[in-house]
Amino acid sequence: MASAIRIIGIDPGLRRTGWGVIDAVGNSLRFVAAGTVTSDDKCELASRLCQLHDALSDVVHVHQPEEAAVEHTFVNVNPTSTLKLGQARGIALLVPARAGLAVAEYTPNAVKKAVIGVGHGDKAQIQMMVKVLMPRAVFSGGDSADALAVAICHAHHRQGAMRIPVAVT
Amino acid sequence: MASAIRIIGIDPGLRRTGWGVIDAVGNSLRFVAAGTVTSDDKCELASRLCQLHDALSDVVHVHQPEEAAVEHTFVNVNPTSTLKLGQARGIALLVPARAGLAVAEYTPNAVKKAVIGVGHGDKAQIQMMVKVLMPRAVFSGGDSADALAVAICHAHHRQGAMRIPVAVT
Repeated sequence: MASAIRIIGIDPGLRRTGWGVIDAVGNSLRFVAAGTVTSDDKCELASRLCQLHDALSDVVHVHQPEEAAVEHTFVNVNPTSTLKLGQARGIALLVPARAGLAVAEYTPNAVKKAVIGVGHGDKAQIQMMVKVLMPRAVFSGGDSADALAVAICHAHHRQGAMRIPVAVT
Repeated sequence: MASAIRIIGIDPGLRRTGWGVIDAVGNSLRFVAAGTVTSDDKCELASRLCQLHDALSDVVHVHQPEEAAVEHTFVNVNPTSTLKLGQARGIALLVPARAGLAVAEYTPNAVKKAVIGVGHGDKAQIQMMVKVLMPRAVFSGGDSADALAVAICHAHHRQGAMRIPVAVT
């Protein structure tokens, strides 16, 4: 029998970072937990990054994932938004890496292809397909569903090529 | 006699992050140390952010600054570069904040104004003026000089308004 691999998927954002933990056993997927960690937008940037760091570290500590996957940030046309997202993404990559996990990165297109079957689709479709693939999944809102989709994408890819090239889309 | 405040200035970058530590005693400035922490561009992004995090944490641990100042990243016209810089900047803000330091942010213009006297000027001018303001300063290259300039800028501003508004320039 194939042993289970626990994967954490992360969808980074400065205000809200979604996370989802699944167990992959061969071709089957099992939902473990999902949620969002948030930062208080009344605080200064450095404090907000600390809040995300500490909350995400707690998630990793509690659920003990063995591999991590982070969604490759959509490069926004607004450079100030891109910078904000980049700062949050730095934390999303750092936390699992410091815990000793390999961190894979996937483009939004690759994530959609893994869960919907095509490289495009909206958040509602992703949420529906996450439910189809893991009927016991419990999540509130798009960020944790997106994070679960990133974890599912990694479960699909890790059996073949461990990491797909990240192309900015 | 005014007591000394130890300040760390940080000039973030994914490949090289400059840092400079100074003591500010009233209006006089004393050089403590400066250098750069680097990441290996052959490694994956998450590992590189870990390298910057660990090296910068060591600097904070060794020199025990009481306040921190980080240069506000120049928002590049190239969004991929902005994203990269944002990720490194997330680490540069996180490390001192997690050590319990208040972290101020200054635009490149504010930094130049503090050390050169005007809001524009090149790296050579900054290096020269850092030497004029702190003759005992030892640094190799522009990144650590820029970081010392950020620390000097903070020393100037903290006596008046603690933090100046960050405007993207």
